[in-house]
Amino acid sequence: MIKKEKINIKTKGNTDVIDITREVQSKVDKSGVQEGHVLVFVSGSTAGVTTVEYEPGLEKDLKEMFERVVPSDKDYYHNERWGDGNGHSHVRASLLGPSVIVPFSNGELLLGTWQQIVLMDFDNRARSREIVVQVVGE
Amino acid sequence: MIKKEKINIKTKGNTDVIDITREVQSKVDKSGVQEGHVLVFVSGSTAGVTTVEYEPGLEKDLKEMFERVVPSDKDYYHNERWGDGNGHSHVRASLLGPSVIVPFSNGELLLGTWQQIVLMDFDNRARSREIVVQVVGE
Amino acid sequence: MIKKEKINIKTKGNTDVIDITREVQSKVDKSGVQEGHVLVFVSGSTAGVTTVEYEPGLEKDLKEMFERVVPSDKDYYHNERWGDGNGHSHVRASLLGPSVIVPFSNGELLLGTWQQIVLMDFDNRARSREIVVQVVGE
Repeated sequence: MIKKEKINIKTKGNTDVIDITREVQSKVDKSGVQEGHVLVFVSGSTAGVTTVEYEPGLEKDLKEMFERVVPSDKDYYHNERWGDGNGHSHVRASLLGPSVIVPFSNGELLLGTWQQIVLMDFDNRARSREIVVQVVGE
Repeated sequence: MIKKEKINIKTKGNTDVIDITREVQSKVDKSGVQEGHVLVFVSGSTAGVTTVEYEPGLEKDLKEMFERVVPSDKDYYHNERWGDGNGHSHVRASLLGPSVIVPFSNGELLLGTWQQIVLMDFDNRARSREIVVQVVGE
Repeated sequence: MIKKEKINIKTKGNTDVIDITREVQSKVDKSGVQEGHVLVFVSGSTAGVTTVEYEPGLEKDLKEMFERVVPSDKDYYHNERWGDGNGHSHVRASLLGPSVIVPFSNGELLLGTWQQIVLMDFDNRARSREIVVQVVGE
C-alpha cells in the first residue's frame, strides 16, 4: 500500500536547516501503516533532504561545510546565463540529493535517538517548499 | 506492484551529465501505474544519479565542483594498485550515490519545473551504462 | 510484500569502511522474494551507507576525501556545545546520507561486478551499529 501526503514548509533559504521529523511521523501515524518505510522527497532543484542530529551547533557546522565545499561567492556558469545568483544553491542540492527514505516498525520511525529528518533549503531567498511524503507498507 | 525496466545510455565519461528524465517518465507511462515512485539505479561503481536543473551552465558548475572536491590529478591509492587511473571516478561516485527515487502521481513524476533526473558518469573513458528503473505502486 | 531484518556490525569508527554486501544478499535470500529492491538504512547520525568498489586502495581514498572535505581537526560548533569531539563525524554522515536502495532480480542484487554495499562509520570511536534491511517485492 502507498499513501501520498504533502508537507508545506516556509524556509528562510540560504542553507536553512529545518527539522521535519514530527511532520513525517504524523503522516505515518495518519496512514495507519505499521510496517514499512517513508519516502521524503522535495520537489525543486535548490533544496535537499538528509538526516542529522538537529541542534544549533551542527546546523552551523553543516552551513560552514557547504560554504567551504560549494562557496556562494564563487563564479558560476549558471549565474552568468540566468543572473539569479543561485548557482551554488543548485550545486549544493545536487550533491546532497532530493530525498531520504526512513524505515518504520510498529508505526515508529527507526531513527537513532539523536537522528532527525531535515530539509535543507539552499536557495538564496526565502521559499515555500512542498515536500512529498509517501508511506509504503502493510 | 513492481515493474522492472532498463535504460541503456552511452556516455562520454569524464563527469558527463546526461538528462534521463524523458526515459524514466516513459517507463512510468509504459507501466500503467498511476500512484507510486520510481527507483533509478545505475549498476557500476564509477557513476551516480541525482537531480539538477539541466542546463549547460550547471553542467559545467557540477563538473567544476567535483574537480575541486575530488581532483582528477591527485594521487589515489586505487590507481597505484590497479593502474586504471580512475580513482577519482570511484570516489566521486561513492560520494554522490548510485540511485535516486522520485514519486509520481496521476502517472506524472513529481519533479519541480526545473528539476531533471541525471546520470553522472565519472569514469575516465566513454562507457555504455545500464540503468535499472523500478516502478513501484498501485 | 515488505520483510524487515537487522544486521549488527561492530566497527572501529574513524571512517571505517565495511563491506556488508554478503549480509544484505543473505537477507534477500532468506526473504524468498525474487523481484524487488532492498533498503539498507543505518540508524544513528554518525554513519552512512553507499556503494563502492571495495578494495584497500579505495578504502584509503575515501577516508582521505572525507578528511579533506570535512577535516577532523577543524573547530566545530557541535564540539563546543557537547564536547564529544565528533562534529566532523556528524557532518560527514549528513553529507553521505544514511541509506541506499539496491534493486534485485531473480533473487540477485543488481550491483555491478565491482560494486559493493558499504557501511561507513564516521564516529570517533568503535561502535556497534544496527542496520535495518527491508526487502520489498513480489
